[in-house]
Amino acid sequence: MTTILNQHEDYRQAEEAYDFPLIIKQLLNRAKIASSDQTISYANKVTYTYAEFFKRINRLANVLKNTGLQPGDVVAVMDWDSHRYLEAYFAVPMSGMILQTVNIRLSEDKVLYTINHAKPKALLLNAEFAPMIKDHRDDAPSIEHVIWVDDAEGTKEDMKEEMPDYVEGEYETMLAAASDVFDFPDFDENTIATTFYTSGTTGDPKGVFFTHRQIVLQTMASTLASALNTEGQGARYNDVYMPMTPLFHVHAWCWPYGATMIGLKQVYPGRYVPEVLVDLIEQHKVTLSHGVPTILQMLLNEMATRGRKFEGLKLLVGGSKLSEGLAKSAIESGIEFMSGFGMSESCPVLARMAFGDKRDDLTPTEQINYRCLSGSPIMLVSMEIWDENGKPQPMDGESTGELVIRAPWLTQSYFKNPEAGNELWRGGWMHTQDIACITSDGTLSITDRLKDVIKSGGEWISSLEVETILSFHPSVADVAVIGVPDERWGERPLALVVLKPEYIDTKAEDILALGHQAAEKGHLPKYGVPSEIKFLVEMPKTSVGKLDKKKMRIMCSEKSI
Amino acid sequence: MTTILNQHEDYRQAEEAYDFPLIIKQLLNRAKIASSDQTISYANKVTYTYAEFFKRINRLANVLKNTGLQPGDVVAVMDWDSHRYLEAYFAVPMSGMILQTVNIRLSEDKVLYTINHAKPKALLLNAEFAPMIKDHRDDAPSIEHVIWVDDAEGTKEDMKEEMPDYVEGEYETMLAAASDVFDFPDFDENTIATTFYTSGTTGDPKGVFFTHRQIVLQTMASTLASALNTEGQGARYNDVYMPMTPLFHVHAWCWPYGATMIGLKQVYPGRYVPEVLVDLIEQHKVTLSHGVPTILQMLLNEMATRGRKFEGLKLLVGGSKLSEGLAKSAIESGIEFMSGFGMSESCPVLARMAFGDKRDDLTPTEQINYRCLSGSPIMLVSMEIWDENGKPQPMDGESTGELVIRAPWLTQSYFKNPEAGNELWRGGWMHTQDIACITSDGTLSITDRLKDVIKSGGEWISSLEVETILSFHPSVADVAVIGVPDERWGERPLALVVLKPEYIDTKAEDILALGHQAAEKGHLPKYGVPSEIKFLVEMPKTSVGKLDKKKMRIMCSEKSI
Repeated sequence: MTTILNQHEDYRQAEEAYDFPLIIKQLLNRAKIASSDQTISYANKVTYTYAEFFKRINRLANVLKNTGLQPGDVVAVMDWDSHRYLEAYFAVPMSGMILQTVNIRLSEDKVLYTINHAKPKALLLNAEFAPMIKDHRDDAPSIEHVIWVDDAEGTKEDMKEEMPDYVEGEYETMLAAASDVFDFPDFDENTIATTFYTSGTTGDPKGVFFTHRQIVLQTMASTLASALNTEGQGARYNDVYMPMTPLFHVHAWCWPYGATMIGLKQVYPGRYVPEVLVDLIEQHKVTLSHGVPTILQMLLNEMATRGRKFEGLKLLVGGSKLSEGLAKSAIESGIEFMSGFGMSESCPVLARMAFGDKRDDLTPTEQINYRCLSGSPIMLVSMEIWDENGKPQPMDGESTGELVIRAPWLTQSYFKNPEAGNELWRGGWMHTQDIACITSDGTLSITDRLKDVIKSGGEWISSLEVETILSFHPSVADVAVIGVPDERWGERPLALVVLKPEYIDTKAEDILALGHQAAEKGHLPKYGVPSEIKFLVEMPKTSVGKLDKKKMRIMCSEKSI
Repeated sequence: MTTILNQHEDYRQAEEAYDFPLIIKQLLNRAKIASSDQTISYANKVTYTYAEFFKRINRLANVLKNTGLQPGDVVAVMDWDSHRYLEAYFAVPMSGMILQTVNIRLSEDKVLYTINHAKPKALLLNAEFAPMIKDHRDDAPSIEHVIWVDDAEGTKEDMKEEMPDYVEGEYETMLAAASDVFDFPDFDENTIATTFYTSGTTGDPKGVFFTHRQIVLQTMASTLASALNTEGQGARYNDVYMPMTPLFHVHAWCWPYGATMIGLKQVYPGRYVPEVLVDLIEQHKVTLSHGVPTILQMLLNEMATRGRKFEGLKLLVGGSKLSEGLAKSAIESGIEFMSGFGMSESCPVLARMAFGDKRDDLTPTEQINYRCLSGSPIMLVSMEIWDENGKPQPMDGESTGELVIRAPWLTQSYFKNPEAGNELWRGGWMHTQDIACITSDGTLSITDRLKDVIKSGGEWISSLEVETILSFHPSVADVAVIGVPDERWGERPLALVVLKPEYIDTKAEDILALGHQAAEKGHLPKYGVPSEIKFLVEMPKTSVGKLDKKKMRIMCSEKSI
């Protein structure tokens, strides 16, 4: 970065000019003026106006401040998608604190690991997840303050009795007691706003972190990329928004920030139960949402059960590749979906389907195919396809290589893990570990994956971790876990096992039992237990004796074993 | 601005991470991958692909560099809207130089004033404007290099003969001779990218200036605000874009940047001749444009002459208030227009009509009324209405006061004019000098103007300047010039004159003749000559003896004199 080129005297700022930082507070500017009467709902439990929402953000900031928390402190949230979560999305970073969105789908071990790694001083805890943090004084000693939320029916007295004694107070009670006036300060836009964890190849989740500036820019670019889509397919001022990517998951793709910035009517669905989601979509006339293909499948099943169709629900899809069968069903059921591509490391959106007139001359089948690809780079995103020597490959729809990226919203490292950060960032580009090709008109297609992980229902599973657990079975000589395509979950783990000669009669269930035990004990998420075991006589290996997972994936997808 | 809050060790950037500056270069990222085959046309003279456009940007950067220009140098452009202008929009600031977009509609005096104030070292000069800079060595001594462009039919030899001897070379010849490879560096996003001049109340135009960051953010927010509009009214990936706000005019509202960022098909129309504009709209199937109400009126007249209608042309309107009659005609003629509000000082867009479901229940007349207002604040823009003591007024659709603003893209002062800059920025807010009210749903309505200027056809006229010229007539005792609503031009200057008793028989034409002479000599733009003179016996004054222009405007709009 060269120094400033022409900031001389003549261009000096006026004495009282306002230096506008790109901080999350500014995302509220438009909504404060244009949407004070618009509503935000939490399922069918709560509905209030933006005017009330702004007051509650102020109240929450006062609660945090009164508790003694300081700018720079980490505040963790364990909740379903609620209006409270949205309030924390704003109040925590706007107070200069760091919001940790805890992935409550991970195994208990991992949840505790992420909390003990990020060291939050406060935790906003939904009663349903209380068992996960056990006795936090011993198991998560950084947490000094626990704020309790409980959606269960009952009186406040009931709730008080149920609250563990370590709890500081109940969310609504504390908010009600706090002032609704808080003067959020301006500060450096490069201040860290959020952190969360992503599972990788090796055992421990890795922390990513994002600044205020990064979130503002991702929010602007991602909403823009969606809005530019052709009639019936883009985000609009008159949309009703509801997330179906959890708020603990990469900022729900920054759409809660985007929807609030635009001032849309919003609905937060709580826990994702297909019947509830579809009920809310129908009752609130939801028009804009997002989710992984697994969610799309659930919606389609539920609506099929009801014998009805969606009325042009716009669904941003990402997280896993959409299958053509699912795509076809979605269109037939009245869902307009827009594929995309992103990562935890990228805030997340990098590419989004751009539907314009270039697609008019495609046949219906070609359209479906196109819709299942990962879209094209959104505004400001730079992409290259590199071969093993770091040489950019042509964008001809055929040449493949590792996808490397630049954008203004990429995590700048991994939290307290500079080695992994330096591995992520090489030569000034972020390495996605995805193998991809790009067509001459900019359509991205992910063809393979360098990292040895499996994505099931939008969540990562470490192959290595599952292999380690299964290898404890006395009959296993060699084991490899790979992801195989699955209509419902995107991918599911499949274990390939070579048995020791003396245990040749071992049954698959016996080996899988180890996986189930690990899940029960909280060492592995339930979705990490392989759906199936295939027995092999010999394990495919590369010329240097490593497991040849590429070959295995081809073998299994071709159903040749 | 407080210091960074939580940039400690743990969040340190990876060694080879890329620090992404918001510089104009990055606006090309998406188009480079997704739109290399898309086309850009200059009227019916030139059509080339984005791939060629990128090469020509590189060539132009090499031309500038080979000429000996340095980062920080000012490069001025005097051209009609052409592919060359678009190339300069990118190549000049991407080279770290400052693009001066010269307003060729100003009087010759003023054009020279702006050049001698900004002191460009190079000038890209369309032959048609050569008379304006006269002998630049004497009249505009800062200019060391003149690059010649000429669209006239004829051979290169003809052109060479016509070129003044001070010309360095002809644009196409120089581009052809330069390499199409140029490695644009990264630099600080707060580097100044552009400068241009705005006419104010007092005589001399004032220079505003914008950084790379400001232009990138305005481009993102302004395109987003347009794209979110409901079906048939928003910017889309499949639009064909053509500017009808000149490229010398507040970056043509940053749409050339936006259209290129998205990768749209683009058409540049050259000089704005109504028949040519409509021909181009029909031939190229233009779907997205922008302009002042005067341009809209021209389009409607031309299309009426042809006995045809537009097919849903989306037109972003701004610069002056749209009259309801014009709005109605536009809708009837198949133009979907979206009003907005902006200023030279604000890059420019601050507000834009947001058309969503809130408008569904309006009657057609109410819709027309709503469409003539100035829209609501676009993303990130903060607005307040202040009374004379700087106290924010309620947004109730009734309380009026001065509109003050904050946004990430406001000029931070006036160029070499810190006093005026400090007047613009008071108390951390930019003072628009517009009197406005805002409804509870965020719709802005400009009701009056504090500054004593008139806007005719999108260009400012200084009342004071016209008053000074007319006051030279020996029969004039007192003169005041005000703007009166005009169907075609938005406003036109009207002169109110009190004659000296001894010259009571003087005719309006005699006094106006002074205005026409000033225009001929290049001291006043032609549109600055009042359309009419009204004679008064006494001039309305305030209690402190100042001209009471507010009263005059009411008198004249009520046609009570």
